[in-house]
Amino acid sequence: MRTYLDCIPCAIRQVLDSVRMITDDETLQTEIVQEVLGLWREVDMHESPPAMAQKVHRIVRQRTGVADPYLEVKNRFNALAMEMYPELKETVIESNDPVETAVRLAIAGNIIDFGVNAAVDEGLVEQTIARSLTDPLDREALADFKDAVAAAQEILYLGDNTGEIVFDRLLVEQLPLEKVTFAVRGAPILNDAVMADAEAVGLTDLVEVIDNGTDAPGTILESCSASFQRRFERADLVISKGQGNFETLSDTDEKIFFLLRPKCAVLARHLNCDMGRQIITRGGRLIRN
Amino acid sequence: MRTYLDCIPCAIRQVLDSVRMITDDETLQTEIVQEVLGLWREVDMHESPPAMAQKVHRIVRQRTGVADPYLEVKNRFNALAMEMYPELKETVIESNDPVETAVRLAIAGNIIDFGVNAAVDEGLVEQTIARSLTDPLDREALADFKDAVAAAQEILYLGDNTGEIVFDRLLVEQLPLEKVTFAVRGAPILNDAVMADAEAVGLTDLVEVIDNGTDAPGTILESCSASFQRRFERADLVISKGQGNFETLSDTDEKIFFLLRPKCAVLARHLNCDMGRQIITRGGRLIRN
Repeated sequence: MRTYLDCIPCAIRQVLDSVRMITDDETLQTEIVQEVLGLWREVDMHESPPAMAQKVHRIVRQRTGVADPYLEVKNRFNALAMEMYPELKETVIESNDPVETAVRLAIAGNIIDFGVNAAVDEGLVEQTIARSLTDPLDREALADFKDAVAAAQEILYLGDNTGEIVFDRLLVEQLPLEKVTFAVRGAPILNDAVMADAEAVGLTDLVEVIDNGTDAPGTILESCSASFQRRFERADLVISKGQGNFETLSDTDEKIFFLLRPKCAVLARHLNCDMGRQIITRGGRLIRN
Repeated sequence: MRTYLDCIPCAIRQVLDSVRMITDDETLQTEIVQEVLGLWREVDMHESPPAMAQKVHRIVRQRTGVADPYLEVKNRFNALAMEMYPELKETVIESNDPVETAVRLAIAGNIIDFGVNAAVDEGLVEQTIARSLTDPLDREALADFKDAVAAAQEILYLGDNTGEIVFDRLLVEQLPLEKVTFAVRGAPILNDAVMADAEAVGLTDLVEVIDNGTDAPGTILESCSASFQRRFERADLVISKGQGNFETLSDTDEKIFFLLRPKCAVLARHLNCDMGRQIITRGGRLIRN
C-alpha cells in the first residue's frame, strides 16, 4: 500500500509521541522532529507507510542513543496479555469452532498497538475481545482460510506487535504446529514483537520462531534477510497479522491471508470498510462487506 | 506565544485540509505539503503559530494560484451568523446585563473557526451559544473590562474570523461607538475576516473599520502596516478576539483584553485552563480559574 497525504501529520504525531517517551529534552525533541520533517519532505509517496517509519525511527534511535524506546511498554503489554491468556485459551477450547474463535481473538489482539494509538487502555482491550466473538466476520474467507491451512505444507505466520502475539499464540495452537514458522521483526521498531517477545510469551516453545532480519514495522521483503526471503518464498500459506504487514505486502499474493483491524481512516478507506472492522482477506481478493 | 511541537502535526493537517479545499490534483497537493514540510523543518519555535501559518498559507496561495481559498466558506459562515443575529441581538437587549451577555456571545462566536476544525456544524454553534450564557466567566476580569471601556478614549477591537464577527458586532454595539475602531486582516488568510466581511455583516455602518495591512491569522505587529501600528499604539484599550490574536500578542500588554475560547490542547495548557473555556483576561494577568 502506498503512503497517503493523511499519513504525514499522523506519522509526525507518532514520532513526537516516541521522542517524548525517550527524552524530556525539548531541544533534542525539536531537532529530531525537524530532521524527520526533512525526511518527509523527500518522501516517495509510492513507498508504504512502514518504509517511511523504518527510516524515521532509525533517526529517533540514532539521535537519542536509545536502541529500544518501547522496551518497557512492550514488556507491559506482553505481561498484560499473558494474564489474559488462560481465560482466552479456555474460550477457544470451549467454543463450537476453536479455529474461528482463535482467528477472531487473533484479529482482536491487533488492538494492542502503540504505533497507532499512544494510549491503549485495558478497558478497550477487554471490550474489543468481547465484541470480537460476535462481530461480523467474512465466513467465506474463513472457510477458505481453513482449507488453505489443511492443504498447506509450510505455514509462515508473520507476527505484528507485542501483547498481540499472545493472541497469535492462541491461533498458532490451532494450526498444525509442525508446519508453522512464526516470524518476528529482526530488530526493535516501535512496539513490534522481536525474538525476546516470542520467548516471553512461550511461542518459541511451541513452534520454530525466526526473525525477518530487519527493523521495519511491517514486512518489506527486499529489506529482509536472505534466509527470511527464502522462507517466505517456500511457504505455501502466509498468515499476515496487522496493519504494518498488510501495508507492506499489500493484497496481491494469493497465498497470503491478512488478519487485521484497520486502525486508521486511511487504511479503512483503502480497504473500503469501517475502522475497527475485523478483516480476514486473502491476497488479491476484495474485502467482502 | 511560542510554537509548541504539537503545533507541527496540527498545522500540517490544516495545510492538507486547505489544499484539498482548493484542488483535487494530488500531485500538486503533495508538492505543496512537501514544500511546507521544508518550511517547518527550518521553523524557529520562538515564533508564534500564526507567524508560521502566514508563511505556509502564502505558499498554498502562490502554488495553487487561488488568492482566497476560503471565500465560499467565509461567505457561508457570515450568512449563517447573520441569520442568527436578530435573535442574538434580542438576547443581549433583554438580558439583565447586556454588556456581559454580549461579551459571552462574542467569546462564543470564536467557535466558528475553520482554522482549527475543518468542519464546524451548526448544532455545535447553537449548543455553544446556549452554554455560553451560563458557563463560568471571570467576573473580576469582566468588571475590570467594563471599567476599562468606561475610561477609554480610543478602543481598538481586533476581529478574528468570519461568522464570528457577527458576534463581535453584538459587543461593539454595547461600546461607545464613536470611540471604537474595528480591525480586520489586510488580506485573505484562512477564514479570517477581511474588509469585505466587515461590510457584509454591517460593521462598517456602525464604526470605523481598518485593516491591519497584512495576511497573518493573528496580529504580528511588526508585519502590520505603519498606519495600523500607529492606531494600535494610540489606543488605550485593545479588545483582542480569538486564538490567533492571543498567540501573536501574547498576554503582556495591560491595555489588551483577550476574549477567546482555547480550541486546542496546546493553548489550553498554555493558559492553564480547560479546552473550550470562556476566557476574558487582561494582558499580563494570570487566568483566574
